[in-house]
Formats: sequence, C-alpha cells, structure tokens
Amino acid sequence: MEKLLKDIEFIVELDKMKSIERMTTLIGTNKREDDAQHSWHIAMMGMTLAEYADENIDVSKVIKMLLVHDIVEIYAGDTFAYDEKGYEDKLERELKSADRIFGILSEEKSLEFRKLWDEFEEMKTENALFANSMDRLQPILNNFYNEGGTWKKHGITHSKVLKRVEPIKASSTILYEYTLSLLDKAKSLGYIEED
Amino acid sequence: MEKLLKDIEFIVELDKMKSIERMTTLIGTNKREDDAQHSWHIAMMGMTLAEYADENIDVSKVIKMLLVHDIVEIYAGDTFAYDEKGYEDKLERELKSADRIFGILSEEKSLEFRKLWDEFEEMKTENALFANSMDRLQPILNNFYNEGGTWKKHGITHSKVLKRVEPIKASSTILYEYTLSLLDKAKSLGYIEED
Repeated sequence: MEKLLKDIEFIVELDKMKSIERMTTLIGTNKREDDAQHSWHIAMMGMTLAEYADENIDVSKVIKMLLVHDIVEIYAGDTFAYDEKGYEDKLERELKSADRIFGILSEEKSLEFRKLWDEFEEMKTENALFANSMDRLQPILNNFYNEGGTWKKHGITHSKVLKRVEPIKASSTILYEYTLSLLDKAKSLGYIEED
Repeated sequence: MEKLLKDIEFIVELDKMKSIERMTTLIGTNKREDDAQHSWHIAMMGMTLAEYADENIDVSKVIKMLLVHDIVEIYAGDTFAYDEKGYEDKLERELKSADRIFGILSEEKSLEFRKLWDEFEEMKTENALFANSMDRLQPILNNFYNEGGTWKKHGITHSKVLKRVEPIKASSTILYEYTLSLLDKAKSLGYIEED
C-alpha cells in the first residue's frame, strides 16, 4: 500500500500538466493548448501514423514515450521551440525537474519512466526519432489549420520550421514528403514567410 | 498518399477533443477538464497502475483503449456520469458518432480503433475492466483533492459513487481497497454526503 500511495501522489501531481500552456493554439480558436492536450494528441498520432515509419518501430513504446515526454515541464515550464534564449538553460531546468517528478514514483517505475524520457530526448533510436516526429508535426498541423498561427504571431520563417522537422526526415519518407508539401502550401497561402 | 491524407484528416478532427468539457475540475481550480486532458491523464494512470491489476493485463492495449475511449464524444458530447436523463440516449448518440469518427480513417485502422472502443464499452475483458477502472478512479481523485468537487456541486452521494467503482472492484483488490478508504475519508471530511 505504501508503494501504491507513492504512485497515486505521482498521478495527482500529473494534473498540473493540464495548466501548462504551450504557444500553439487549438484549431479554430485563440485558446492556447496545454501540455496534457498536446501529449494526448501526439500519442494518438503515434498510434495512427506508426505504419508510415520507414523502419520497424515499437508503437507501444512510442506511445509511452509520447505520454511521458513533457511531464518534466511540470516544474521546468514549456520552452517555445523557437525561443533561443529559453533553450540556453532548457536542459538544466528539465534535468532538475526530471529528478523531482520521476523521483516521486517507486524505484522500478521511476527508472522505467526516466529511461523513456531519456530515450526521447536523446533522439538516437528509431522509436525516439519517430516519437519526436509526432511532436514536431502536430504544431505544424495546428498552425496550418489556424492560417499561420504561431508562425505568423512570432515571425517564424519557413527555413526555421524546416530545421525543426529533421526527425521526420530521418524516420518517414512519406510523412516528410507530406510535411514539405504542407509547408509549401503554407508559403503560397501566406501562412508562413520565406526567408 | 491518399491513405495518409485520410489519417491526417482524422488527426486534425481529434483537435476538437480539447474543447469538449467534462464536469470534473482541475485540482485546485474551478476550470473544467476537457476530454483530451482527461484521456492523457488516465492513459498515464494505466501505465502507472497496471502492476496492481489482479489478473495479467496487456498494458499497451489498456493505454490504447484509454486514448481512444472518449473520441466518440467529438460529436456525441460528454455525458455526466450521474446524468440519468443523458444516459437514456447516450449509447445511441455515441454509436452514431463512432461510425462517423472512425469512418474517417482508412479501413484497417478504422476497424482496429473501433474494436478498441467496443471492447472498452462492453467491459467484459480484463483489459477493458482495468481501463474502465482508470476512467472511474481519476474523477474520484480530482473530486477528493478539490474537497468535494462535483460531488458537492451536484449532490452526488457516497452510494452513487460506490456503484460507479464496480470495475475497480472487479479488476484490482488493492486499488479497490484504496478507493474505499479514500471515499471513507471523503465522507468524514464532509466532501461527500452519506445517503
């Protein structure tokens, strides 16, 4: 029962993910998305798009990685993908936060969840590359269907977005092709600026 | 590519889950939770609590079921667990909605996702019972940590909540024990009324 109480404490703490705002807005609204919504959306994307990975991936592991990947933001906050200053101490903040949030759990599970987070962050395995692809593609979809969204609001140019989609290029030929064509369309519609 | 475009259409439609409000509020706030947040939270619960199931369960399948279980609410809306009138046509509304939302997907995936939803709804397998337990336990935690939450607001009594936790009783002895003790504590603290 003592072990279970630790796990419940972790679960209660996770509720905070619902209040951590990201820059991306929900499609058709000005409402900012939060980390819980985002994590659910990309987990569903992983489940839906796994078949398009070039290599054989473990979809269940990808889903678990995606569910866990942002929980360090409970204490570290969200860092906007194009915030260069924020990225300077992002890793430091998140490592500290990871120790704290995963530390609530009983030992075995603490290690298991931490390993998933580490693998996602290191982006070296096929599973991690595909999981990161989901994380990169989702805001592109939201920005496209919001006629520019945060690209327009923060003056993010086409070449900057192209740099962000490297994991897609590395993990799925067809998804990368789709992403490039969507970004081209975004350019021609004036949703995103050329450099 | 045609198949991928269907899958992307489905993914874009899923964004609507972030605007479907449930009765439950976030811990420490008056903000109502939405379906995407809820689904992420209980998927994390499934991952965290799977080891407490009495029978051997397939945690990856449980997670997939939990991710998918509420997407029919995109067209059918959320039905409050204690809304007797809403429950009269809940199944009819949700079946119609299921045909529509799963129908967007390419055929194979449409069947796969629909099967997960059916299994969750039928609540006959060990995996479905455990998944339903997560769905029932989460609002109890939020209500407890909100000092009564929707129990107080809508006059939900102890015996009504007890009926809702039957799947927990059927799938995990220790989680059921924990739930009963939490509900007792809620009673003694005045968070929930005795009948």
